[in-house]
Amino acid sequence: MRLLFLGDVVGRAGREAVIAALPRLRARLGAEFVVVNAENAAHGFGLTPEIGRALFAAGADVLTLGNHAWDRREIIPYIEGEPRLLRPLNYPPGTPGRGAGVFAAGARKVLVANVMGRLFMEALDCPFQATRALFATHGLGRTVDAALIDVHAEASSEKQAFAHSFDGRASLIVGTHTHVPSADARILPGGTAFQTDAGMCGDYDSVIGMQKAAAAARFWKRLPGERLAPAEGEAAICGVFVETDDATGLALRIAPVRQGGGLSEAMPEGV
Amino acid sequence: MRLLFLGDVVGRAGREAVIAALPRLRARLGAEFVVVNAENAAHGFGLTPEIGRALFAAGADVLTLGNHAWDRREIIPYIEGEPRLLRPLNYPPGTPGRGAGVFAAGARKVLVANVMGRLFMEALDCPFQATRALFATHGLGRTVDAALIDVHAEASSEKQAFAHSFDGRASLIVGTHTHVPSADARILPGGTAFQTDAGMCGDYDSVIGMQKAAAAARFWKRLPGERLAPAEGEAAICGVFVETDDATGLALRIAPVRQGGGLSEAMPEGV
Amino acid sequence: MRLLFLGDVVGRAGREAVIAALPRLRARLGAEFVVVNAENAAHGFGLTPEIGRALFAAGADVLTLGNHAWDRREIIPYIEGEPRLLRPLNYPPGTPGRGAGVFAAGARKVLVANVMGRLFMEALDCPFQATRALFATHGLGRTVDAALIDVHAEASSEKQAFAHSFDGRASLIVGTHTHVPSADARILPGGTAFQTDAGMCGDYDSVIGMQKAAAAARFWKRLPGERLAPAEGEAAICGVFVETDDATGLALRIAPVRQGGGLSEAMPEGV
Amino acid sequence: MRLLFLGDVVGRAGREAVIAALPRLRARLGAEFVVVNAENAAHGFGLTPEIGRALFAAGADVLTLGNHAWDRREIIPYIEGEPRLLRPLNYPPGTPGRGAGVFAAGARKVLVANVMGRLFMEALDCPFQATRALFATHGLGRTVDAALIDVHAEASSEKQAFAHSFDGRASLIVGTHTHVPSADARILPGGTAFQTDAGMCGDYDSVIGMQKAAAAARFWKRLPGERLAPAEGEAAICGVFVETDDATGLALRIAPVRQGGGLSEAMPEGV
Ligand SMILES: [Fe+2]
Ligand SMILES: [Fe+2]
Ligand SMILES: [Fe+2]
Ligand SMILES: [Fe+2]
Ligand SMILES: [Fe+2]
Ligand SMILES: [Fe+2]
Ligand SMILES: [Fe+2]
Ligand SMILES: [Fe+2]
Repeated sequence: MRLLFLGDVVGRAGREAVIAALPRLRARLGAEFVVVNAENAAHGFGLTPEIGRALFAAGADVLTLGNHAWDRREIIPYIEGEPRLLRPLNYPPGTPGRGAGVFAAGARKVLVANVMGRLFMEALDCPFQATRALFATHGLGRTVDAALIDVHAEASSEKQAFAHSFDGRASLIVGTHTHVPSADARILPGGTAFQTDAGMCGDYDSVIGMQKAAAAARFWKRLPGERLAPAEGEAAICGVFVETDDATGLALRIAPVRQGGGLSEAMPEGV
Repeated sequence: MRLLFLGDVVGRAGREAVIAALPRLRARLGAEFVVVNAENAAHGFGLTPEIGRALFAAGADVLTLGNHAWDRREIIPYIEGEPRLLRPLNYPPGTPGRGAGVFAAGARKVLVANVMGRLFMEALDCPFQATRALFATHGLGRTVDAALIDVHAEASSEKQAFAHSFDGRASLIVGTHTHVPSADARILPGGTAFQTDAGMCGDYDSVIGMQKAAAAARFWKRLPGERLAPAEGEAAICGVFVETDDATGLALRIAPVRQGGGLSEAMPEGV
Repeated sequence: MRLLFLGDVVGRAGREAVIAALPRLRARLGAEFVVVNAENAAHGFGLTPEIGRALFAAGADVLTLGNHAWDRREIIPYIEGEPRLLRPLNYPPGTPGRGAGVFAAGARKVLVANVMGRLFMEALDCPFQATRALFATHGLGRTVDAALIDVHAEASSEKQAFAHSFDGRASLIVGTHTHVPSADARILPGGTAFQTDAGMCGDYDSVIGMQKAAAAARFWKRLPGERLAPAEGEAAICGVFVETDDATGLALRIAPVRQGGGLSEAMPEGV
Repeated sequence: MRLLFLGDVVGRAGREAVIAALPRLRARLGAEFVVVNAENAAHGFGLTPEIGRALFAAGADVLTLGNHAWDRREIIPYIEGEPRLLRPLNYPPGTPGRGAGVFAAGARKVLVANVMGRLFMEALDCPFQATRALFATHGLGRTVDAALIDVHAEASSEKQAFAHSFDGRASLIVGTHTHVPSADARILPGGTAFQTDAGMCGDYDSVIGMQKAAAAARFWKRLPGERLAPAEGEAAICGVFVETDDATGLALRIAPVRQGGGLSEAMPEGV
């Protein structure tokens, strides 16, 4: 089965690039299931229902979020009625929305989860325990045909510890949040494909997607600065492509996807 | 001028790979100046004089450090007498060693600095101000022919803000510390080559170079665990190659370097 | 019912002062139940079985811990067999020891818990949820006659938010960890006695109980310094005294206890 | 000489209590110089020029700030023309306003500084080095008759390390920011009076001055909550009184000041 994951979509530049490219990219890659992290799609901070609908319409099967999940409050009533939109699984009991779901891809079932790290991030319940509980009820190659986890975390150590902890139980574990694609796509010994970070879909001539001058000023000064706004140059689309073994749900190959925006291009061979 | 930078060398696997590969890599790339981050070369924590000498002997012109600079105390007397070994520039006044230096590469002069970020790291003086002061006395294309800054930092935002702040004043600004190579090598509008993180030289079947089981246990448990030790499988060598314009010191091209250890290979075209 | 709580015992100075004073203090106050935070009793870092036994022998009914719980590994087998020694309740599932217990004080039953905050501290499961679960099975004035919670946390905001959240369900909620007694002892509107921090039992001519020069050097320098060791001057004993209503378990009065060591003395009136 | 320092004034309750009480308190204590931390005076976040003027009119000689210095932007033009208002000394070069000043108190001169800690706070230049530089130009008992430093910091360890580092060079070093008065007022061996935290002037039936329900909800949930607003019950006034030796500028006595708001009352003896 062919899966495509795209990293944090940032602002207008990022979402317009994704919306424009996704139909053709999906076809070119033969992707049967597409997950997009949308936590920064609305002006860099959060997601609106309207933008969520546009991303679904462009070909995303599931959208994930992260620490910016609720930056736009209007997403809260929307997520209650939209099971294809996931917020971090390890948010406190009682949080609106869902952190994981099983979705149909034709005759196949795909488990998707969004889980958030804790190192250098907010205080949350343990993402490792939450994921262990999730896999106690979903078995790759048994109850689901593929499993994709978006681990939204700052520290490379936490993302890698997470991936090794669940190696063999997911098709793909992919990091998000740093807004920089890592060049370490690989299949772990247990058969799970992994990349420390998918990178963002946004304008890289920026500070993690935001306009350079205002963002840099925050490191130079301790003053209320200009508001941060997304950079508006040409966006790169960054993500990860995985092909799974239908018998086991494990990964047969992983390849980074990078297109446009001044980054070096990357596309799976033979597509 | 051709510059090669290699990211954090981790443990025996990392340093033996670098020592074995560097002579040939240097020749193949025609690299005239080589900088290696060695903060994890001694069993994952710090650097010893003996390992420092071995890395110089293998072809490193300058070694940089980071938050693990003093993990091995015997490096302190050594650094006092070894100007080619740099510790973070923005360490407090009175800290042994130097944070920057100008080094000869044949008839050319290369400025190298090691500077440390603050976001999610220790309390330090401002790396931006320290670097501004450095460039007040060293002008690229005027007093030095090339300038390379290793910005040792956790957050992608801080590294990118730093790079944009000094775009046009350095040949290469390259991040270290996350131990994951980023796939965003590019030349910024002002002519400075940049990659958010060089990645480590070490065994990637690990948690940032350390053995998986013990490192992952730290995220699952709050108990004194096994000591962390470097992973000992085949190491990947990760770094960045830059070619500069001799007239200006600015970058003409940047290319990631990745070799061995199960990562996808990357080498500049035409070498 | 009369309860006495003593804050973090630091090193030899702290524990010798507590061991010497506790029998008389207990008698003078008519304290029927005594809880002591012992996380720093062993040379400032952790607790040994031997020191634990000495504190029990001197009159402590229960000992609590905190982020230094496991600094001395020999406490781990000891805690397994010693229900009177409590480690943080919200440590991960599978952690040795217990985080709460119900203890006999003559014919009465006292619930004691040790819970750890997260703000500026380690990643842990939610202390608020853990405590909510605890009170779901223990009702003050119904299943237990008194309830005392040691909330080991850095931030005053988290300790106060915690206290208000459980106001009316505990006899005493008292903070530990900052090693400084707060002067805000009061009974909250719901009847729970509260003091943001009990303060340490140790030598205050120090940096939170550790020798001044080495501890201050860590703020001035980024170098491997002298090892920290507890200050050895006269220790102050710091804690909180509470008298409860036997019918409800709620607090009738709270008074700080401070004795010796150069701090202003404080003792409940009429004792 | 008699000095009075009042801790973080929080919101309307805090500032109205201070404005009402200060004239009489000043007279009762015979205070010749009064410093008030005003970083939370405007609805809990920052200070407005109008509130600043009201505090000066009520008897404050100098106002200090902290991490909330710029929460109200209109204070920035005001501070440029008001030398009696101090922001953190170790803010970056180029920051508006001043971090220290020498002020006349009759025929005497008083040095006042506001300096900010770094542990668990923002990235700033070293407060220890900044203060060392300050004392290189101002000598207690030589160029100034008294010196008072408000060290605005989270961690008790940093505040105590700071106090010991400058023991003998200031009349009073007093912490702010935790919004809880510490019960550890004392004169250090070198003659500097010290209290780890002055406590806030505000309503203590709150979470550090803010309304309980909304503030506690932030620890229970990860959702955009109600906005925080200051608690509006009766405020306690919290501070520190110091009497100095006119010959040396060192402290002869220190006494906590607490008045109203349900905290235990404290006032220097004999006033
Ligand atoms: Fe993001
Ligand atoms: Fe994020
Ligand atoms: Fe490193
Ligand atoms: Fe590092
Ligand atoms: Fe402690
Ligand atoms: Fe502690
Ligand atoms: Fe404050
Ligand atoms: Fe503050």
